[in-house]
Amino acid sequence: MQSSHKGIYERLAVGKTARFDAKLVHLLGCAARAFAENGYEKTSIRQVAKSAGFSLSNIYYYVASKEELLFLIQYHTFGRLVERLETILERDASPQQHLKEMVHMHVGYLVEHLPELRVCVTELHSLSGEYYKKVLVRRQRYFELTRGIVRRIGGVVEPNLATLFLFGMLNWIVMWFDADKNEPHQLADSLYLLFIKGYKGG
Amino acid sequence: MQSSHKGIYERLAVGKTARFDAKLVHLLGCAARAFAENGYEKTSIRQVAKSAGFSLSNIYYYVASKEELLFLIQYHTFGRLVERLETILERDASPQQHLKEMVHMHVGYLVEHLPELRVCVTELHSLSGEYYKKVLVRRQRYFELTRGIVRRIGGVVEPNLATLFLFGMLNWIVMWFDADKNEPHQLADSLYLLFIKGYKGG
Repeated sequence: MQSSHKGIYERLAVGKTARFDAKLVHLLGCAARAFAENGYEKTSIRQVAKSAGFSLSNIYYYVASKEELLFLIQYHTFGRLVERLETILERDASPQQHLKEMVHMHVGYLVEHLPELRVCVTELHSLSGEYYKKVLVRRQRYFELTRGIVRRIGGVVEPNLATLFLFGMLNWIVMWFDADKNEPHQLADSLYLLFIKGYKGG
Repeated sequence: MQSSHKGIYERLAVGKTARFDAKLVHLLGCAARAFAENGYEKTSIRQVAKSAGFSLSNIYYYVASKEELLFLIQYHTFGRLVERLETILERDASPQQHLKEMVHMHVGYLVEHLPELRVCVTELHSLSGEYYKKVLVRRQRYFELTRGIVRRIGGVVEPNLATLFLFGMLNWIVMWFDADKNEPHQLADSLYLLFIKGYKGG
């Protein structure tokens, strides 16, 4: 199941900009769009190769399987989200300010990478084995960092439950976001406002 | 794509209790569990037949295809949710009380029919053509009835956006609900509290 190219995702994770990685990033973007549009199961690796301008043999130089494509999309996406959240948390600010920045960062990343986020939300359980576990570690890290902020704020709803509600609002955006109708900054403001006022109990 | 048994879903929709319908309801429950567990695309109609104790030829007496099974699950589920919400709205109460009852009804239905709700949330786009459209009509009805309540309450977030956030919280529950850890009534109370306090701006 794993690619023979050991370390692909490690290199991707640290954001190297070598030619190989630039092509891989392009490939992952095309795969995310194809999976988001037609569903992971219904999309063949042949279709992904075509949409990326790769031959079928060339795509296998980069990834071992369709599942590795899905894995790399999710692993990369949660990696970026965790990194950005850690950067926010390094800055000295109140927990409320940290949460506000987290919500804006998440919504901003989401609108810039809508197919990738859609694939993360809707195809969570299409991965198996080691792939699933590696993504799970990053997903949990992202959840726990956010729950830590929610806990430090303190509110009228149990922090774990409140964090699940927060991610419900955030994750569901991928199902209805329309770049022509929704302004991301205002959307993030509204979501943060609703959450924080509700959590603090007014 | 449509079954030759015209009117199956109409009969299902009005809740007739004939022998045919009881067997169909059993079949849909088994199909929902199989789809929720393994994903719709990965599950064969043969697997559904087996889990329901039907022969493959017998299952085709009830439905024309795997897609019709998915359609019936979603159509039936949104039908029940709309009916129950309409019943709530017939009672004389404040918009806040209506919303509170809607949230409790939704969470209550969800925990009783977790596989069906999971299939509604995660396989929305696995339907096509007429099947998709028929479900969409009911989904929209459910959304619009809820948005009407949210609008009548009035708050600091635009009502359509607030309703999308509310459904984000509600729909995401299917991804994390654990009957051993979560008490449905308390969960619904917390969700309603967070939403209403946030929406009213404290």
